[in-house]
Amino acid sequence: MVEVKFLPSNKTVSVQDGSNILQAAIAAEVQVESTCGGKGTCGKCKVRLQTGEADKGVNLTPAEKKFLTPAEIESGWVLACQHILSEDAVVVLQEQKDAYDRKAGFHDSEKIRAHAPGIRKLALDLKEPTVGDQGADWERVVRALPVEDVPFSRPVAASLPQKLRQGKFKVTAVLDGVRLLAVEPGDTRDRSYGLAIDIGTTTVVVYLVDLNRGTVIASGAVTNPQNIFGADVIARITHAAGGPQALQELQEKVVGGINGIIAQLTGKCEVSPEEIYQAVVVGNTTMSHLFLGIDPSFLAPAPFIPAFQQAVEIEAGELGLNILATAIVTVLPNVAGYVGSDTVGVMLAGGADRLQGVNLMVDIGTNGEIVLVGKGSILTCSTAAGPAFEGAEIKHGMRAAEGAIERVHISSDVEVGVIGGTKPRGICGSGLIDALSEMVRVGVVESSGRLAAKEAQLENLPPLVRRRLRGSGGGAEFVLVWGEDSATGEDLVISQKDVRELQLAKGAIMAGIRVLLRELGAEVREIDRVFLAGAFGNYIGKQSALGIGLLPLVPLDRIAAIGNAAGDGAKMALLSVAEKERALSLARQARHIELSSDKGFQEEFIDALSFEQKV
Amino acid sequence: MVEVKFLPSNKTVSVQDGSNILQAAIAAEVQVESTCGGKGTCGKCKVRLQTGEADKGVNLTPAEKKFLTPAEIESGWVLACQHILSEDAVVVLQEQKDAYDRKAGFHDSEKIRAHAPGIRKLALDLKEPTVGDQGADWERVVRALPVEDVPFSRPVAASLPQKLRQGKFKVTAVLDGVRLLAVEPGDTRDRSYGLAIDIGTTTVVVYLVDLNRGTVIASGAVTNPQNIFGADVIARITHAAGGPQALQELQEKVVGGINGIIAQLTGKCEVSPEEIYQAVVVGNTTMSHLFLGIDPSFLAPAPFIPAFQQAVEIEAGELGLNILATAIVTVLPNVAGYVGSDTVGVMLAGGADRLQGVNLMVDIGTNGEIVLVGKGSILTCSTAAGPAFEGAEIKHGMRAAEGAIERVHISSDVEVGVIGGTKPRGICGSGLIDALSEMVRVGVVESSGRLAAKEAQLENLPPLVRRRLRGSGGGAEFVLVWGEDSATGEDLVISQKDVRELQLAKGAIMAGIRVLLRELGAEVREIDRVFLAGAFGNYIGKQSALGIGLLPLVPLDRIAAIGNAAGDGAKMALLSVAEKERALSLARQARHIELSSDKGFQEEFIDALSFEQKV
Repeated sequence: MVEVKFLPSNKTVSVQDGSNILQAAIAAEVQVESTCGGKGTCGKCKVRLQTGEADKGVNLTPAEKKFLTPAEIESGWVLACQHILSEDAVVVLQEQKDAYDRKAGFHDSEKIRAHAPGIRKLALDLKEPTVGDQGADWERVVRALPVEDVPFSRPVAASLPQKLRQGKFKVTAVLDGVRLLAVEPGDTRDRSYGLAIDIGTTTVVVYLVDLNRGTVIASGAVTNPQNIFGADVIARITHAAGGPQALQELQEKVVGGINGIIAQLTGKCEVSPEEIYQAVVVGNTTMSHLFLGIDPSFLAPAPFIPAFQQAVEIEAGELGLNILATAIVTVLPNVAGYVGSDTVGVMLAGGADRLQGVNLMVDIGTNGEIVLVGKGSILTCSTAAGPAFEGAEIKHGMRAAEGAIERVHISSDVEVGVIGGTKPRGICGSGLIDALSEMVRVGVVESSGRLAAKEAQLENLPPLVRRRLRGSGGGAEFVLVWGEDSATGEDLVISQKDVRELQLAKGAIMAGIRVLLRELGAEVREIDRVFLAGAFGNYIGKQSALGIGLLPLVPLDRIAAIGNAAGDGAKMALLSVAEKERALSLARQARHIELSSDKGFQEEFIDALSFEQKV
Repeated sequence: MVEVKFLPSNKTVSVQDGSNILQAAIAAEVQVESTCGGKGTCGKCKVRLQTGEADKGVNLTPAEKKFLTPAEIESGWVLACQHILSEDAVVVLQEQKDAYDRKAGFHDSEKIRAHAPGIRKLALDLKEPTVGDQGADWERVVRALPVEDVPFSRPVAASLPQKLRQGKFKVTAVLDGVRLLAVEPGDTRDRSYGLAIDIGTTTVVVYLVDLNRGTVIASGAVTNPQNIFGADVIARITHAAGGPQALQELQEKVVGGINGIIAQLTGKCEVSPEEIYQAVVVGNTTMSHLFLGIDPSFLAPAPFIPAFQQAVEIEAGELGLNILATAIVTVLPNVAGYVGSDTVGVMLAGGADRLQGVNLMVDIGTNGEIVLVGKGSILTCSTAAGPAFEGAEIKHGMRAAEGAIERVHISSDVEVGVIGGTKPRGICGSGLIDALSEMVRVGVVESSGRLAAKEAQLENLPPLVRRRLRGSGGGAEFVLVWGEDSATGEDLVISQKDVRELQLAKGAIMAGIRVLLRELGAEVREIDRVFLAGAFGNYIGKQSALGIGLLPLVPLDRIAAIGNAAGDGAKMALLSVAEKERALSLARQARHIELSSDKGFQEEFIDALSFEQKV
């Protein structure tokens, strides 16, 4: 046995000699990013060996030579799935930052081009007051600024006398447009930070951004602490409808979660929360309401009315956000009750107002939001189709985590790829789409969505695949993984009911796309690009998505995953006043189509349920 | 003995048959307004008899017939000093309101002419949303308003969905300029209230104003609760310099005091605090800083620099003021470290920008602020001269309350008038000025300020007056009231030191006036009007003020008391946007003369110490 200690968590585990670091990490229940399931093909499981392995760079596998730079090898980096443990080791894991930033694929460089943030810092060298020059402190500072009509700020004025005298009247003014956010003793111009915040129903992600350099210097994520009131937006709205106190509770929960990340990121980066001068927030409409403590009650019942739609600017102190109290927090505008500022972020990051031709943007998360751009219009719609693809209501559905089946291929038998390379525990979204697509392709599922049952159908299946079909009618199911190969000992199956759930979901999304196409007066063949936003879009098999009819049948090379585009949009709006203006303009331009009242939607929906491929 | 119960305090007292109500009130320690000392000449001690005296209007004295209207007599009103008690009685005292309003003498009608408040209420009849009209609630309301660029308000949006639906989309919008302060279900246009607040170092006064009708409907006062940290501004500043927590403590104290009055006034008038949409605050510069929680540390040492000078607009919620959280609280601007928004209020109420000729405004409170207006200029200065006139540092000095000597006349002997008509306990400001003036006039005090000691001086005094002079040098004193006639049994005296204190105080004020006159290039004879602001100004003997050289020697009819002009200014700014603008303009126009650095001040000061009368 060898002992492996993981930093920074300090978790220690004993594993058999000959185990690899990835296996040790799973045993220690620490998270190591890996998308190929330990095959050495994704290169994402980089970790650094700290001690106990004196000879760095020896016994490297071909995969390690491929994915590690000489500098990384020199510093002791290895691939966790490749490195065999032969003695005790201390392993330093990559910060969660890297895992998240890698998902934000649209801006690989993490550098937003042409950044021009709203925050300006100005070094002032003021005259000290005398009995002949008794002007007040606030007026003394404001008169030295190159802007007019600076609104009075009580919090800034409150401590101004001390700050001015600490700095011997040499201070740095922090301006956001014409607002004076802070006055700091001395010259602090080289330090200026902001936050981009993506509030998901499930996960909250915070990016700490260096506003001078235009780079993300750290990021972190937590499960949205509101989840104790329920997993989906309807449960949250129901809780909020309990009255002002319940609403406040939800507001404080999510702010508390964000504050937790802020504490962690600022500690790590040696940034004071007081040096964070701005934040931009995106989220679905319900999350925006709850973050601001605004009653979302009437989002739930038809006609789905939000309390507000416009962008909101508010001081951090009013929200309880632990950054500079006077920092302006901008919540980007929503488009409708179920098309939120996260979708506006997607439009911004995807460049919806700059693309030529006809472009489709699909963000499948807890809900499915669809944007169709072209012919001078921006159309949006929303379907409640998402959760099935996140594993909700699916018998063995689970989130994309260790032990989740993420890839399925059927030839003579079923082959699966599992996150973390362990025995499978369930199936995540990309696995479900793969499985369904393969099942349709080989004939396990017929075009109506029924599992094959007729003798003629079964005869065409390879024997090992056919063995996996059992039961009949509503109780029919298809075994993906036999119990002997699963982590739970239980057979992992796709049930007839699962197929129906997925069928309804993909049908709703496709019908939404078709309604928007009709509204725009465009055909599927006119679609120039399909952007898949969100983590889901990164991992989904494009061919499989086409295979089940989740996306319209366009050439594969027109489909691109754009990562966490909602968060990218928030970063862009944070780093550039012009980009923020674009976001507001995009939200104004967008025309929302309410599917529940659209006359053609039902017909499109029923038509889209079929697994028959149409153009 | 008869038993007398006073309402609303419910205090009960037994007094001898034949006592009057004023005597009973003093015994019960309840406050009855009276300025003539029970002589029946001021008519201010009106009280209402509730029971026990069946025959109303019988046995009225000539004084009662003079001061009471037939309606008042019909309702059981009597003068407390005139009504002799012959059986048990229940006496209803006038509300404190009346006592305070009576002091606000400038607007006797309590009605501000041409009121046009910033608050507007608009009844809206909105279309209910449908799936074909999914616009958000906030946008639905804002689009119906007759103003552009309404800034988003989180608190209003927070409860908007409920309010709209409670009112079935018939609501009243409350606007302050372009700000949307509240949305109320139904049509509430007939109810609209505001507060004028005068924060004194010693006393805080709050006026509840009906904005629709332009009238004060109630007012109340409390001792400024900050007084536990010291009586004067320097003590408060010293405490505030202890750090942010001490500063917050002072802020919360004064807001707590105001909230106490608000609770009382709103309860009495059946107004909800949520129906108070605006407040205007005046106070000296230190009080303004502390009310806003802004560090006043550098007001104390030279060069006396305030943290801010401009008018401040801030939401009530941010200050913890218990009115509508979104209500805008305007603190009028200050002019300098010791010329605050209270003086701006005086300028506004006094019409400093509209007066013809040369006009002098003097507000003697804890400090003495002086404004000289004329020849196109507004000049201000401040002296720390006030406290002596409030009885501070004076051996038998006291505030104007029961038992205070408020009038002094010397002929063959000394005669005094006492507040409440009781035996005297001490001397208040107007009594001190009277006493000093009379002592100068008859020769008890020589023009240098020394108490008479030379035989030639004493010989000219009436024998009974001469008897009252005793001791010599610094220990000399003049007995105003012999112990047998005083409430304490102690002789009440004006000491040589007292004379010196008053001499320094009046010298400082007169020197300030002379410096301003010189700065303006005007002579005393050019002064057209002298306005005396504040409670002090109401009670001061004008002739005595001239007699001691506190004011420049102008004809008596040019001197007018204008009551609580600071509070009147606050009311005017509350009731009229144009008046508020005038206040800001007056503060900008005012040029402050810092006496401590003025080259001529010392000379003027020494010259002004003399009691010799000069023009």
